[in-house]
Amino acid sequence: MGFSFKISARDGRARTGAISTPRGDIRTPAFMPVGTAATVKAMMPESVRETGADILLGNTYHLMLRPTSERIAALGGLHKFMNWDRPILTDSGGFQVMSLASLRKLTEEGVRFSSHIDGSRHLLTPERSMEIQRLLGSDIVMSFDECTPWPADEKTARASMELSMRWAKRSRDAFGDRPGHALFGIQQGSVYPDQRAESAEKLRAIGFDGYAIGGLAVGEGQELMFQVLDYAPGQLPDDKPRYLMGVGKPDDIVGAVQRGVDMFDCVLPSRSGRTGQGWTAHGPVNLRNARHRDDPRPLEEGCSCPACRNYSRAYLHHVIKSDEIIGSMLLTWHNLTYYQRLMQGLRDAIAAGTLEQFVARFHAEREQGDIDPAN
Amino acid sequence: MGFSFKISARDGRARTGAISTPRGDIRTPAFMPVGTAATVKAMMPESVRETGADILLGNTYHLMLRPTSERIAALGGLHKFMNWDRPILTDSGGFQVMSLASLRKLTEEGVRFSSHIDGSRHLLTPERSMEIQRLLGSDIVMSFDECTPWPADEKTARASMELSMRWAKRSRDAFGDRPGHALFGIQQGSVYPDQRAESAEKLRAIGFDGYAIGGLAVGEGQELMFQVLDYAPGQLPDDKPRYLMGVGKPDDIVGAVQRGVDMFDCVLPSRSGRTGQGWTAHGPVNLRNARHRDDPRPLEEGCSCPACRNYSRAYLHHVIKSDEIIGSMLLTWHNLTYYQRLMQGLRDAIAAGTLEQFVARFHAEREQGDIDPAN
Ligand SMILES: [Zn+2]
Ligand SMILES: [Zn+2]
Repeated sequence: MGFSFKISARDGRARTGAISTPRGDIRTPAFMPVGTAATVKAMMPESVRETGADILLGNTYHLMLRPTSERIAALGGLHKFMNWDRPILTDSGGFQVMSLASLRKLTEEGVRFSSHIDGSRHLLTPERSMEIQRLLGSDIVMSFDECTPWPADEKTARASMELSMRWAKRSRDAFGDRPGHALFGIQQGSVYPDQRAESAEKLRAIGFDGYAIGGLAVGEGQELMFQVLDYAPGQLPDDKPRYLMGVGKPDDIVGAVQRGVDMFDCVLPSRSGRTGQGWTAHGPVNLRNARHRDDPRPLEEGCSCPACRNYSRAYLHHVIKSDEIIGSMLLTWHNLTYYQRLMQGLRDAIAAGTLEQFVARFHAEREQGDIDPAN
Repeated sequence: MGFSFKISARDGRARTGAISTPRGDIRTPAFMPVGTAATVKAMMPESVRETGADILLGNTYHLMLRPTSERIAALGGLHKFMNWDRPILTDSGGFQVMSLASLRKLTEEGVRFSSHIDGSRHLLTPERSMEIQRLLGSDIVMSFDECTPWPADEKTARASMELSMRWAKRSRDAFGDRPGHALFGIQQGSVYPDQRAESAEKLRAIGFDGYAIGGLAVGEGQELMFQVLDYAPGQLPDDKPRYLMGVGKPDDIVGAVQRGVDMFDCVLPSRSGRTGQGWTAHGPVNLRNARHRDDPRPLEEGCSCPACRNYSRAYLHHVIKSDEIIGSMLLTWHNLTYYQRLMQGLRDAIAAGTLEQFVARFHAEREQGDIDPAN
């Protein structure tokens, strides 16, 4: 019962298959809902599973501060704590320290920072990140890196990439040998092909169970991101999962799958669900808009989620305008269902060798836009 | 398929039985969760049903303002709108106009007021309240009354009661003949036995399908409330359901059932669930308290709700402290489950003729207080 990755079909550069773990298989391409603080916001974990999710993402930074990884370990680990017995991937904490914590000081050793919750001082290093992720019981552990900020000139990007590669080695050493658990390395190098190649070489030399493409979706825009994805995945081992961190919108995911990416995570479907945005095959729908006030139709015809099966757009509009919690619950449920339906469509199309047609239809449906208002 | 009430067993003044409606039976004594704005806050309606609820309460005041009763009617009625196909009782709007709206002006005709949402001007009368409740599709309609404020001297209480009785007659006339739907009258008279008796007489003369005891749980305290309940239910018809509006805490409910009340509603279990309070056989538990931080035990041993089956007190503490929506979801679910378990216990005890022992155990368990902290 180890950790393995099998590709069952290819279509162009896209691949479909499954990552096997002792806690269950992860069908790829996979979308991982984000469960930051030991909960996918506004969802019961049973419901997250019902949407088709095979794996969740947990955030090391949040959990190390509250309730703390030591406390979660004493309570039996993150899976038991949050009632999710399938695989969990945890990030290394590095990215969120840089975006959320204050009084940060980055050195060769790691990052010192103050908690955004209570101001307490902490030190996160590759070794400490590995320890925290072990205490949480994470199935897929991410090595500790610095997400190179955007934009970065060649020299800055190189220094950042080289630091991340030294941290990758320290992460690997600290992770040790943990059968059934996987460690992923993270490629950096900003938008510079030679640096991306060098980063990939260094990671391959260290050896990981999977490889993430880091430093993207940080403000560079879809066009530049796709330019990097035209070559970056091919620099990584073909027989290991490739994970594009923090991505993204449905069309980002589709373009990245076409370019050979296997795994994704993003707060977008859950976060936008809490602000009244529903994602559909016809693009995003703002349910706060008064056009839905009298609309008896479901958010998305044919969708299997409870929001679409049991409620009208008029109801969703009403509960969102009234700030009722059920509005967040229903829209998050729908959005995660839509994302998983998209991933299933991508997997089926790759298996059938019809990815090009699938993507053409995906874009055509989005261009149609939302259905016309009800009279 | 009309509306009827059958008492199947009695124990002292307490009764157990069922109200039959075309939308399903309501086992009595019954607790009705409050679904103010077409949602029981933080709950899916399927989950509310799972807790054992046979009927929900909807609020006329909130729904008339948003999304409006006309809109709900056009969308197929409140049951369809909120995806609850079992019975719904709606209040008349009178109580909440007086507690939530501004610029109120009460006359013989009714109450003029400004919406707390957008300041728009409205007039609520017995006739308009009947129309709104008909548009909503309510199964049990409450007549329009003035909830006599506390305290009220005899003269004030009498004037208020007499106005409510004139409004009760207008409500009855406006309600008309609606097979399968019930209209309840509301007894007033504050804490004055002769006024309560006179109010009951007037209501019986008009004739209703059920009778509420109004003007209690408005600040008078449990002792005074029980004093009124020592005689008020007996002034109402024995063969019709008796409903104590807005009550209450578990011990209020137990005392009222002993005194012959059949129906209850209260926001307490759902509202307190959103602030981290869990209700158990041992009394209320404040899960924000740090004593639960490392506690691997469930909130209430043996409880069938997901909060108790799948999570530790430590997890509940964590998500409540972190303001995660799942904290409100889980605690509301538990609290509604506890309330329904209490009602089932009361029904079983009345049927078995063991209510006295049940009540003694209820109080003994509460006196024990919460379990000791973990180690
Ligand atoms: Zn849906
Ligand atoms: Zn429970």
